[in-house]
Amino acid sequence: MNSGRLEAFSDGVLAIIITIMVLELKVPEGSSIEDLKPLVPKFFSYVLSFIYVGIYWNNHHHMFQATEKVNGRILWSNLSLLFTLSLIPFPTAWMGENHFETNPVALYGINLFCCAITYTILEKFCIQIQGKDSKLHLALRNKTKEILSPVFYTLGIISAFFYPLLGMVFYTIVAVIWLIPDTRIEKQLK
Amino acid sequence: MNSGRLEAFSDGVLAIIITIMVLELKVPEGSSIEDLKPLVPKFFSYVLSFIYVGIYWNNHHHMFQATEKVNGRILWSNLSLLFTLSLIPFPTAWMGENHFETNPVALYGINLFCCAITYTILEKFCIQIQGKDSKLHLALRNKTKEILSPVFYTLGIISAFFYPLLGMVFYTIVAVIWLIPDTRIEKQLK
Amino acid sequence: MNSGRLEAFSDGVLAIIITIMVLELKVPEGSSIEDLKPLVPKFFSYVLSFIYVGIYWNNHHHMFQATEKVNGRILWSNLSLLFTLSLIPFPTAWMGENHFETNPVALYGINLFCCAITYTILEKFCIQIQGKDSKLHLALRNKTKEILSPVFYTLGIISAFFYPLLGMVFYTIVAVIWLIPDTRIEKQLK
Amino acid sequence: MNSGRLEAFSDGVLAIIITIMVLELKVPEGSSIEDLKPLVPKFFSYVLSFIYVGIYWNNHHHMFQATEKVNGRILWSNLSLLFTLSLIPFPTAWMGENHFETNPVALYGINLFCCAITYTILEKFCIQIQGKDSKLHLALRNKTKEILSPVFYTLGIISAFFYPLLGMVFYTIVAVIWLIPDTRIEKQLK
Repeated sequence: MNSGRLEAFSDGVLAIIITIMVLELKVPEGSSIEDLKPLVPKFFSYVLSFIYVGIYWNNHHHMFQATEKVNGRILWSNLSLLFTLSLIPFPTAWMGENHFETNPVALYGINLFCCAITYTILEKFCIQIQGKDSKLHLALRNKTKEILSPVFYTLGIISAFFYPLLGMVFYTIVAVIWLIPDTRIEKQLK
Repeated sequence: MNSGRLEAFSDGVLAIIITIMVLELKVPEGSSIEDLKPLVPKFFSYVLSFIYVGIYWNNHHHMFQATEKVNGRILWSNLSLLFTLSLIPFPTAWMGENHFETNPVALYGINLFCCAITYTILEKFCIQIQGKDSKLHLALRNKTKEILSPVFYTLGIISAFFYPLLGMVFYTIVAVIWLIPDTRIEKQLK
Repeated sequence: MNSGRLEAFSDGVLAIIITIMVLELKVPEGSSIEDLKPLVPKFFSYVLSFIYVGIYWNNHHHMFQATEKVNGRILWSNLSLLFTLSLIPFPTAWMGENHFETNPVALYGINLFCCAITYTILEKFCIQIQGKDSKLHLALRNKTKEILSPVFYTLGIISAFFYPLLGMVFYTIVAVIWLIPDTRIEKQLK
Repeated sequence: MNSGRLEAFSDGVLAIIITIMVLELKVPEGSSIEDLKPLVPKFFSYVLSFIYVGIYWNNHHHMFQATEKVNGRILWSNLSLLFTLSLIPFPTAWMGENHFETNPVALYGINLFCCAITYTILEKFCIQIQGKDSKLHLALRNKTKEILSPVFYTLGIISAFFYPLLGMVFYTIVAVIWLIPDTRIEKQLK
C-alpha cells in the first residue's frame, strides 16, 4: 500500500482543524476598537495553535516524503495523531475565553503532550516499516528536539499552576524550536 | 473511469465529519475543573464516533486500494454511504447532551446500522465490477465481521430501551472487532 | 495546464458544502421522540440538497474525466459554479426552519436555477477548449436533461407562490431525472 | 521535495475558508422577504471575500504550476499566507454585521494588505528556488498589479475613516484588476 491517500486524508483533517479555530473569533456586536479587545487573548491562542498544527503538518509532510510503504499500524497510529490534534481547538478556545488561567493552560499543555506521544508512536512505526538502513531512520537519529519537547511541556504544565503565562512561554519555546527549519530529512533525501 | 477522485471526495467528506464533531465540545464559561464535567459524556461519544468514522475510512481505503475501475453505481452507492456517515454527528451530539438516554442511544445504533447497510451495498458493487476472480472478491470471502456487526447493532438498539449503557457496550464491541487489524485485503494484495 | 488541482479544490468545496448542511440539524435539549419532530422538515430539505450537491459532484467528475486541458476561463466559471453551490445551505436551512413556506421554497428554486446556469457556462467553456470533435462534445450532444431542468425549476418557483409543496415536487423531479445514471460520457469514453 | 502535498493542503484550507464564510448568512426566523434584508450587506461582503479567496487560489494554482521544487522556506511562507487568509472570514462578517462602518472596513483592508505581503514573500521564495532563468521569474517580471494593489489597499484603509463605502470601492477595484485574466504564467508555460 502506498501512502498517497493517508496523506490526503491527513491533509483534509489538518486543514479543517487549523481553519475551524478561527470560528472562535466571534464577531462582536459593536464596531468600535473597544469591541475587539476581548478577542485579543483568543487571537493569540489561535496564532500559537495555528503554528503548532502547521509544525505537525510540516513534519508529517517531511516524514511521509520519506515513507513509501504503509500498513495497518501506520494507518491507526496516524488516526491517533489526528485525534489528539483534533482536540486542540478546545483548550485553544478555553484559554482564549478565560485569559490564560491555570486549568485551560494546563489542559493545553497536556493536549500538546498527547500529540507529541502519538506523533512519536507514528514515527516509530514509519521507521520500522522502512527498515534500519532507510533514509528516514538515518535522518531522525538526532533526537534533541524530540527529547526537549516533552520536558518543556511538563515544565509548562507545572508552571500553569503557579504562573500560567510562564506555561505559555514554555509552549512557545517548543514551537520556536520546531520552527527552526528541520533539515534532517531534506538533507538525507539528497 | 478510475477511482482517484472518488477517493479524494470521500476523504474530504470523512475528514469534515470526523472533525466537526469536536465542535460539540463547547467551551465552558468558567475555568474550573468542575466546568468540564458536563463535557465528559460528550467527549466519550466523540471518541467512539471518531473511531467509527476512522474504521470506515480505513476500510474504504483498503477496498479502493483493490478497486481500480469505477462506474455510476459505485459513485452513487458511495454517496449513500457518505450520507449515512454524515448523519453520525447528530446522534453523537444528542447522546452526549442527554447522557446516553434511551432514544439517543437507539438512534445512534440505527444510524450505525444504516452505515453498515450502505457500506455493504458499496462493497457488493465494487466486487461486481472487479469480477469474481478479483483480489477484492477473494479477500472478502470471509464475512464473519460483516455478519456479527448488524447482530450486535440490533442487540444494542434493543438494549437501549432497557439499559442504554449496555447498548453502548454493544456498539463498542463492534468497534473493537473492526479495530483488530483487518489484514484480508493486505494479504490478498501481496 | 491540467485539471488535477481544479478537481481537488472543487472536491474540497463540495465536500464542505455537503457536510456543513448537517450542522443545521441542531441537537434538541430533550431526549424524547417528540423533540425530534421539529427536525423532520430540516431533515428532508437536507436530503434533497445532499442529493443535488451529489449530482453536481457526479456530473463535475464525469465532465473533467473528459476534460484534460484547463484555462483561466474554466477556472473562473468553475469558481462561479462553486459560489452558487455554496449558497445552497442557506435556502436549505431556511426551508427547513419555516416548514417549506413560499419565500424559502422560491429562493431555493432560484438558487438551483443559478447553479444550473453556472454549470452550463462551465460546460460550454470545457467543450470549447476540447474542440468540436472531442469526446466531451459528442457525449453531451443530447441536451434533454439540460433543457428540462430550467423548465421545471421555473415551474417550481411559480408553484411556490400558490402551493409551496408542489414547488418541492418539481425540484424533486429534476433530482430524479439526474439521478437516472447519465451514461453519455461513460459511453463516449469507451 | 515536490509541491503536490503543499498544493493539496492549501486547497483544503482555501476550500474551507471560502465555504465557512457562508455560515455567517444565518437563517432568519421569519419567512418574509423583509426578514432577508439584514442579510444583504452580509451577502455582499461574502461575495467580495469569495472573489478574493478565489483570486488567491487562482494565482496560487498558477504559481505552483510553474514551481516544481519546494523547500522549508516555501512551506512556512505558504503557511503564513494561509494564516492571513484564514483571518478574512472575521472582518468579512464584522463588515456585514455592522453595515460597512469605519473600523470593520479598515480592518478588512489591513487584512487584505497582510495577505498581499505574505503572498509576495511566498512568490519571492518560489522564484528564488526556481532560479533567475526560470519560467516563473520571466513570467512575473511585469509587476504592475503587484504594485497597484497595496496602493489601493492603503487608499481604501484611509478612506474607511471618512467614507467607508469609498474604501469598499477601492478594495473592489483591486479585485477587478486581478479578475482580468492573468495570462503571464500561462503564456510563459507555452
